[in-house]
Amino acid sequence: MSLRYALLAVLTAGPLTGYDAAKRFSSSVGHVWSAPDSQIYPELRRMEREGLLVGEEVRWGPNSTKTQYRITDAGVESFRVWVNTPLGYSPTRDVHRTQAAYFEWASPESARQILLAHAAHHARQVELLTVIRDGIKAGTDPAISRRLESAPQSDRERIIAYKVHMYDGMIAQANMEIDWAREGLDLVNRMNPGRDVDQ
Amino acid sequence: MSLRYALLAVLTAGPLTGYDAAKRFSSSVGHVWSAPDSQIYPELRRMEREGLLVGEEVRWGPNSTKTQYRITDAGVESFRVWVNTPLGYSPTRDVHRTQAAYFEWASPESARQILLAHAAHHARQVELLTVIRDGIKAGTDPAISRRLESAPQSDRERIIAYKVHMYDGMIAQANMEIDWAREGLDLVNRMNPGRDVDQ
Repeated sequence: MSLRYALLAVLTAGPLTGYDAAKRFSSSVGHVWSAPDSQIYPELRRMEREGLLVGEEVRWGPNSTKTQYRITDAGVESFRVWVNTPLGYSPTRDVHRTQAAYFEWASPESARQILLAHAAHHARQVELLTVIRDGIKAGTDPAISRRLESAPQSDRERIIAYKVHMYDGMIAQANMEIDWAREGLDLVNRMNPGRDVDQ
Repeated sequence: MSLRYALLAVLTAGPLTGYDAAKRFSSSVGHVWSAPDSQIYPELRRMEREGLLVGEEVRWGPNSTKTQYRITDAGVESFRVWVNTPLGYSPTRDVHRTQAAYFEWASPESARQILLAHAAHHARQVELLTVIRDGIKAGTDPAISRRLESAPQSDRERIIAYKVHMYDGMIAQANMEIDWAREGLDLVNRMNPGRDVDQ
């Protein structure tokens, strides 16, 4: 159900074809609410049937047309209600922490490899997310510059600030995972004295 | 699929009836891999069919019996392989951060309420997880004391240390969310000058 609101978010910045909506999604809100194209197209059609979007045929090349989706007033209202509504919390399901809780069953080598992969994964996340965050701050990120074009001047500062805050949260989370993996590596070494390896 | 290994983890500490396995699960590994009882019972039966557990009828009251599940050598081996295997990473799906990225659509009051609820939720998590972490450290947590009873003396330190590390990670994550919510509250106040409320 959250996919709906993530897609509405993208379409509040202006109309898009299904293909462009999917592309724009994956390079913006898809970083925090990931969804495959195979979920995006049916959801666009569902929202059209429910009156949250209208599909308009637009020219595509010399002999063809494509459906372009535009958010309706009902779609804007639905998105606004969602943004203002406190959401519940799902119970935790963290497979990596579950595994690490039982590292007494792992060889020191496996535990180290797993923790190094954990740190490396989250270091890549930090790198990727920092580039996007900085592009939003600078107004050069394509998704944010498109959104700013259609927004009143008075809203621009907060549009940027809330996106930056969101990415700051994701970056803080990834950095926390890196710290946790490093503490885990220290622990594996302490629990296996004489079997240290250089890290 | 991870539920299977979380359940095997519980049963490596000794045999349990289905009911006791579900209870033990929710007060130990269920904190990091949550699952409803409705998933636990069928998974126990599936694992029995696959030879990872054996079900033994045990006396239950004067006139009744119950099935008690014991992990087999194949179950132990399956669990050990899983703990030693690097696991993949799912794409991010964080509904709370998705929502907060679009707070220019929220009233300052709604945004504050949502962020205060976020901080309060994670503060309760910190409180709960800290009690469990400290119980594990002290060896008084029922799940850990049962596990330690059946473990060789030489393994006890690492059994405790890895569980503590896991809970430390969950606590760090919850504290990061509290910090993020507080930064969000500051931001909402900065973006809406003259509409501050006492926090």
